[in-house]
Amino acid sequence: MEYTTEDSCKDLQIAYVGGGSRGWAWNFMTDLAMDPQVSGTIRLYDIDRKAAECNRIIGEKITRDPQARSSWHYEVSADLAGALTGADICVISILPGTFTEMRSDVHAPEKYGIYQPVGDTVGPGGFMRALRSIPMFAEIGTAIRDYAPNAWVINYTNPMTLCVRALYEVFPEIKAFGCCHEVFGTQNLLCQMLAGEYGREGVRRQDLDTTVTGVNHFTWLTAASYKGLDLFPMYRSFAAKYAADGYTVGRDTNWLNSFFRSAQRVKFDLFLKYGLIAAAGDRHLAEFMPHPYLDSPDAVRQWGFGLTPVAWREENLQERLERSNRLISGEELPNMESSGEEGHLLIKALLGLGSLITNVNIPNRGQISNLPLGAVVETNAYFSRDRLDPLFVGGLPPNLHPIFERIVCNHENTLTAALTCNRELALETFMNDPQMNRITIGDGKQLFEDMLSAQKQYLPSQWFA
Amino acid sequence: MEYTTEDSCKDLQIAYVGGGSRGWAWNFMTDLAMDPQVSGTIRLYDIDRKAAECNRIIGEKITRDPQARSSWHYEVSADLAGALTGADICVISILPGTFTEMRSDVHAPEKYGIYQPVGDTVGPGGFMRALRSIPMFAEIGTAIRDYAPNAWVINYTNPMTLCVRALYEVFPEIKAFGCCHEVFGTQNLLCQMLAGEYGREGVRRQDLDTTVTGVNHFTWLTAASYKGLDLFPMYRSFAAKYAADGYTVGRDTNWLNSFFRSAQRVKFDLFLKYGLIAAAGDRHLAEFMPHPYLDSPDAVRQWGFGLTPVAWREENLQERLERSNRLISGEELPNMESSGEEGHLLIKALLGLGSLITNVNIPNRGQISNLPLGAVVETNAYFSRDRLDPLFVGGLPPNLHPIFERIVCNHENTLTAALTCNRELALETFMNDPQMNRITIGDGKQLFEDMLSAQKQYLPSQWFA
Amino acid sequence: MEYTTEDSCKDLQIAYVGGGSRGWAWNFMTDLAMDPQVSGTIRLYDIDRKAAECNRIIGEKITRDPQARSSWHYEVSADLAGALTGADICVISILPGTFTEMRSDVHAPEKYGIYQPVGDTVGPGGFMRALRSIPMFAEIGTAIRDYAPNAWVINYTNPMTLCVRALYEVFPEIKAFGCCHEVFGTQNLLCQMLAGEYGREGVRRQDLDTTVTGVNHFTWLTAASYKGLDLFPMYRSFAAKYAADGYTVGRDTNWLNSFFRSAQRVKFDLFLKYGLIAAAGDRHLAEFMPHPYLDSPDAVRQWGFGLTPVAWREENLQERLERSNRLISGEELPNMESSGEEGHLLIKALLGLGSLITNVNIPNRGQISNLPLGAVVETNAYFSRDRLDPLFVGGLPPNLHPIFERIVCNHENTLTAALTCNRELALETFMNDPQMNRITIGDGKQLFEDMLSAQKQYLPSQWFA
Amino acid sequence: MEYTTEDSCKDLQIAYVGGGSRGWAWNFMTDLAMDPQVSGTIRLYDIDRKAAECNRIIGEKITRDPQARSSWHYEVSADLAGALTGADICVISILPGTFTEMRSDVHAPEKYGIYQPVGDTVGPGGFMRALRSIPMFAEIGTAIRDYAPNAWVINYTNPMTLCVRALYEVFPEIKAFGCCHEVFGTQNLLCQMLAGEYGREGVRRQDLDTTVTGVNHFTWLTAASYKGLDLFPMYRSFAAKYAADGYTVGRDTNWLNSFFRSAQRVKFDLFLKYGLIAAAGDRHLAEFMPHPYLDSPDAVRQWGFGLTPVAWREENLQERLERSNRLISGEELPNMESSGEEGHLLIKALLGLGSLITNVNIPNRGQISNLPLGAVVETNAYFSRDRLDPLFVGGLPPNLHPIFERIVCNHENTLTAALTCNRELALETFMNDPQMNRITIGDGKQLFEDMLSAQKQYLPSQWFA
Repeated sequence: MEYTTEDSCKDLQIAYVGGGSRGWAWNFMTDLAMDPQVSGTIRLYDIDRKAAECNRIIGEKITRDPQARSSWHYEVSADLAGALTGADICVISILPGTFTEMRSDVHAPEKYGIYQPVGDTVGPGGFMRALRSIPMFAEIGTAIRDYAPNAWVINYTNPMTLCVRALYEVFPEIKAFGCCHEVFGTQNLLCQMLAGEYGREGVRRQDLDTTVTGVNHFTWLTAASYKGLDLFPMYRSFAAKYAADGYTVGRDTNWLNSFFRSAQRVKFDLFLKYGLIAAAGDRHLAEFMPHPYLDSPDAVRQWGFGLTPVAWREENLQERLERSNRLISGEELPNMESSGEEGHLLIKALLGLGSLITNVNIPNRGQISNLPLGAVVETNAYFSRDRLDPLFVGGLPPNLHPIFERIVCNHENTLTAALTCNRELALETFMNDPQMNRITIGDGKQLFEDMLSAQKQYLPSQWFA
Repeated sequence: MEYTTEDSCKDLQIAYVGGGSRGWAWNFMTDLAMDPQVSGTIRLYDIDRKAAECNRIIGEKITRDPQARSSWHYEVSADLAGALTGADICVISILPGTFTEMRSDVHAPEKYGIYQPVGDTVGPGGFMRALRSIPMFAEIGTAIRDYAPNAWVINYTNPMTLCVRALYEVFPEIKAFGCCHEVFGTQNLLCQMLAGEYGREGVRRQDLDTTVTGVNHFTWLTAASYKGLDLFPMYRSFAAKYAADGYTVGRDTNWLNSFFRSAQRVKFDLFLKYGLIAAAGDRHLAEFMPHPYLDSPDAVRQWGFGLTPVAWREENLQERLERSNRLISGEELPNMESSGEEGHLLIKALLGLGSLITNVNIPNRGQISNLPLGAVVETNAYFSRDRLDPLFVGGLPPNLHPIFERIVCNHENTLTAALTCNRELALETFMNDPQMNRITIGDGKQLFEDMLSAQKQYLPSQWFA
Repeated sequence: MEYTTEDSCKDLQIAYVGGGSRGWAWNFMTDLAMDPQVSGTIRLYDIDRKAAECNRIIGEKITRDPQARSSWHYEVSADLAGALTGADICVISILPGTFTEMRSDVHAPEKYGIYQPVGDTVGPGGFMRALRSIPMFAEIGTAIRDYAPNAWVINYTNPMTLCVRALYEVFPEIKAFGCCHEVFGTQNLLCQMLAGEYGREGVRRQDLDTTVTGVNHFTWLTAASYKGLDLFPMYRSFAAKYAADGYTVGRDTNWLNSFFRSAQRVKFDLFLKYGLIAAAGDRHLAEFMPHPYLDSPDAVRQWGFGLTPVAWREENLQERLERSNRLISGEELPNMESSGEEGHLLIKALLGLGSLITNVNIPNRGQISNLPLGAVVETNAYFSRDRLDPLFVGGLPPNLHPIFERIVCNHENTLTAALTCNRELALETFMNDPQMNRITIGDGKQLFEDMLSAQKQYLPSQWFA
Repeated sequence: MEYTTEDSCKDLQIAYVGGGSRGWAWNFMTDLAMDPQVSGTIRLYDIDRKAAECNRIIGEKITRDPQARSSWHYEVSADLAGALTGADICVISILPGTFTEMRSDVHAPEKYGIYQPVGDTVGPGGFMRALRSIPMFAEIGTAIRDYAPNAWVINYTNPMTLCVRALYEVFPEIKAFGCCHEVFGTQNLLCQMLAGEYGREGVRRQDLDTTVTGVNHFTWLTAASYKGLDLFPMYRSFAAKYAADGYTVGRDTNWLNSFFRSAQRVKFDLFLKYGLIAAAGDRHLAEFMPHPYLDSPDAVRQWGFGLTPVAWREENLQERLERSNRLISGEELPNMESSGEEGHLLIKALLGLGSLITNVNIPNRGQISNLPLGAVVETNAYFSRDRLDPLFVGGLPPNLHPIFERIVCNHENTLTAALTCNRELALETFMNDPQMNRITIGDGKQLFEDMLSAQKQYLPSQWFA
């Protein structure tokens, strides 16, 4: 990496772990190509090498697109060492296992009345996904320690908290953080409220000042303002107005969210209960507070959100594979519009090209004063040249505090169980999730064993020794 | 207070708050009368002044008994200030409210399938008892600050943790601790095991070395030895042997426990699950881990313990009142045998008359390294002249840690709710108890309101403003 | 206070404690008058009421100046209660005592070979100034608690750290912070370096990204960049180049600093020793690290800075009094240029009118990870609508850490001694300052007593009981 | 190791690192031989293998002595692995370097007016000894991790704090503690006071209850009692009475202390200044607080203690070598009297054969509440079967706190410098010792280099790369 002027930088080396990703990678490559301040090399690494090859071709098409404003060189790396050596930035965006395992994660618990709208964060599905992801991230973190210890590392993989936590566990000095766009959705909702309810059009989510606290997919805003306006009293009226029937005006049409619409009823209900703005999609929020939102498929419907079937994901993947083919063949041209994601902006901030405050997942150094140090939390942080400094947000309020302590304990125990293949601790932790309240220990044990077996291929063999 | 030699002390001033107690007070007065090293004055204070007067008469009979080895003067105080002024020691043993309120605590939740064997520690009953006890202890703590700031304060009242916590909240420099004999029962069980299973007769609980950790009524032994013997492997066999059918040999016949027998099945089951020795009566343990032990009255029976009906307590009180009358009239002579309680030994240790290590409830200063500082916990501590220093026990194991974090959070929230009469926080905390898992929010709210009303007389009026 | 649009605000109520200040107040009043986004009322309170009356007249002239862009109403308050009641903002800028006491602070120790360039922060002078300031700030803090608990409080008085610390001691929920322009000077030096040594003209200090850590007047930059440029390697060359002879190009001509010029040799020397950029004037830095810079008046000269005599301050005050008279009489017109201070920007940020990151003195909530929580430290913080959130800077490096631990301990002990009038603790703390290394205990005691007597009028009478 | 009954144990495996020690080893071997409850094997390891062979012969003579009450087998190990494999207990008592290096430690600084009575703990001598000891203890700690991770490790080597700290640095799970008899001397002084001043004969130091806090050789008693007697008021009179002329009655005649007599004037002076009982020899105490006690050889004499010349140590070693020869040849018979040391009692306590409370050096886990966690401190701890639990002592008083923070920082920096061979950090830390106040930086640097060179043979070669 080399600064050409203090305002731009060339020869940036980016390692992309999971570089065969269909969809998210394309956005990222486009965002970079559209940015005139940075250029360099992107090394794609994927256990599915063929997928990485496809993306190399697509990346090259993107960077050669007439609209592109910067030039990127694409390579496919044979292994982590090759991708990481010399990297300034490492992006991690992998699928831990396949949709076959995810089918077990999401649907196996339904037999026992446990319905998960997403199943990748907490609950039995999130737990199992963590068990198989943690060893993968331990391997990636170790490789970063050995081959790119000074690189900045951005993770996009779920379960976000435990993936980032695992990186820090194996390499405490790692400069890693996790990014998620869920908070953006709630910020957009606030903008919609300003426009639709208060006639203030044209406010963008970036114009708001929001104080974020929590853990990924269970984040809360403890303050929100637009210039001199305190948005809390406004939101109180807004939530009260739409609590019963839901708010369906001006939905987000981003493809990522198209299936995932909600009527925001969970969000409003949580505001009325806790006085803070829950800032993630209702599907995610409900997984942390299953009762009453996930009591039954009917309850889910009444609360105005959906259970995403893995079958849909499989179909969607099929469509994306086809699009990949079209992009490679030239049948379809790359979409050169900005994705709305912030990845390239964060990279630039870390290069000194425009500091930024945004929400991010990193270990707690005290930014949340009443959660344990070291637990991965999501709060605002300040990105500047080669620095990422969290902003102090204070303590969680008493009524939310016990809920978070339980989450953090479960996370720590999941990490320990995953790294030591400790079956007893794993089962106890699996059972300690609030979604498991509705199930007996006997049934829980059976479910645990079934789900563990279903992902045997992606787990260390010690689990079955 | 004055040392006569370095080995004995006269003119000790003891304030006894709740000095009208029938039963426990008599034991305490006897233990003191039988100890030749200390003498002095006991000032009885009780909101039921007549009861205190009765105990004054009984106390005088005890101290004049021919077997008595030290002389005590008894007074009845009209108020806290009178009892506390000049006190070296303050003993607190009150009943927060009456058995009418306790009837609500214990039995009101049964309507919703929540069965409580005791109902004075956690669960809906323990929570409600805390709500009314905390303001009482805030008042007592404030009086101690004002009238006897240097006195050592021993609490025997339940809910132990929150009563002690409230004292420290209003007077952080207070020299207070809480004593409970539940751990002794498990130590006695270990002695029974040594005798019955291993042929080592005559070992007393005081001869064991046990490492205690947890909170009151949910205490655990993380180590236990008798001289060179590690008791854990022995207990493992013991628990396995009796897990299915229970252990009923050599029961404790102390009157306090006579109704409260158990087959130790909960204790054995917890050992098999967690690998540590749960050290409280099964009735208490089950209240912290309701599932499966409290799933139904049938489950309770199968697990080999009982649900203590408040009606029994009322009858028992009647018997004790009658005994009080007989003691006053001289129809019955005081029982001059040692109670097995440690209160007088602790007082003597604090006077320099024999240091002692035992388990005690005090704020966490780090003795349990992974629970918050300030939370009241139960661990061993060293009692010596005017000092009480906790022994470091280390961290709770990962599988128990989340359970304790939840308990501590609920305690802190209960304290805040009780001191600020915060209805919302109170309800959320009430609902966050594991016993409440089996109940809907609507039912929970109804139960909360019903139970609050049932103890209206003993709550600050702000609750109903 | 009322928002007229989300971009401006009227009827802001500002309490100005020490509102009779000559000089600093005028800048502040001008900065406010030149800002079109805010208007309101400024209530001047001063123990020298006549001085406050003078400033009221000057303030009214400033707000009526044709260049003024906003309108302010001025009042003189008879007491703290009057000034504070209803205040949105409270500015504190007082002189603790008079220059008579300061003469003792600065010059009394010279008899024993202790030379202080400023004498208001640490060393014998700073200590004595703290002893008399702390009770004043305890009084002000208590008044804020009682009359304006929700106001934001900005302190400008030295000793900054202990003044802010005292406010938090008496009112832990206070929303107070301390501002100081010393860091700005070093940021300006970096800009001069960029222009003079590297040909990059026109960079303003606000364009730099600097990571600030330490305590007031002993602040350090652990990172500094301008866009993509890392300023550390540049500063390394710069310091090496000018270490021997000093850097005297492009001095700051701000009147506040005119007497206070330095050749930056202390700053360069500290960089060469510690590898970090000391970010305060050399006069202040030398007081924290007296050896060798303060070994003698000759040493001071050689190191290229000056000892500010109190006589100069007295003359300067005389000039400012005369200017006050001229401003009142109209003989001189107010200077309507921006002062370069940030006070009004911070106020606006707290109103939601433009968020801001800058360095500020507030209690440590973990932003410096290896200093005690609660100690007042100076780091960057993010100012936004009704929030002030520190940015985490991490731990002080090992070689500076012990120096800071000693400073923090001395501060805490000074606070305790000042609030309890504890003569023993005061003397020990006085002697524990590094400047006192060169003096015997006997001499130190004599000096302590002499300096205490010299400010008798401004100390609680218990000191002399 | 095997328990024969619960009251005794055979086949105990003890690794003795530094097993060639002349003097201390003999006491330890005798204490073990005289104890009927334990027997087993002692494996002597020493870099001076011949010395270990000599002690093997002496050990065998001791165990065959007619007075011996238990039987021990002696072996000489060729390396650490051999000594440690299978060990239940590891004793470390080495001389880091030789008296040649110690001559530099103690006497080189005298050229600059720095006089050290001992020179093995702090000050320039202690610092240099630490630099060479830390890598040795890192090696020993690593070997314990690899060959005897479950062994209990007792260190007797100075500098105690940093030797223990280094063990925990390389193997955080180590079960190590450091023992020192300095506190015993002060406890004995209290007994002498009781007998000589108050007529209470026959009280032994073990009968006292003392609360110990601090770091090795700079320990303080914050409470001391004998049964009901508070010894503080007594000590206050005692200190006042003998402060001017010293107390020379009833000196300790233990050979270890014979040269090291003092008149206790430093101890009394510190009591009068700080109100707590300094509990180490005056020679050690003065090294932590050099002014005024170490201002000059004259000052030392006036304060009533001595500067131990290394020449004396060399002569004394010669005598001990001769005694070793006599013991081997049989010319002299072993002394079978108890040494008064506690080592064998601690070993027995850890085996379950008699629990014990005594002062010990271990990492701070909160026992001193205002010193950093992990710093090695000396406080009381409870020894029981396979456990060592510190007792909480609370915070150091404010006037001593800054002194200890500086000590702890210097220790941590010394450790870092020693393990990383960081010359800059080493020099800064060397200069930050209070003993170095009287020396210029130039002289300090020269002294540093001279002393470093003087021990070149015992330092990692990176120091001179």
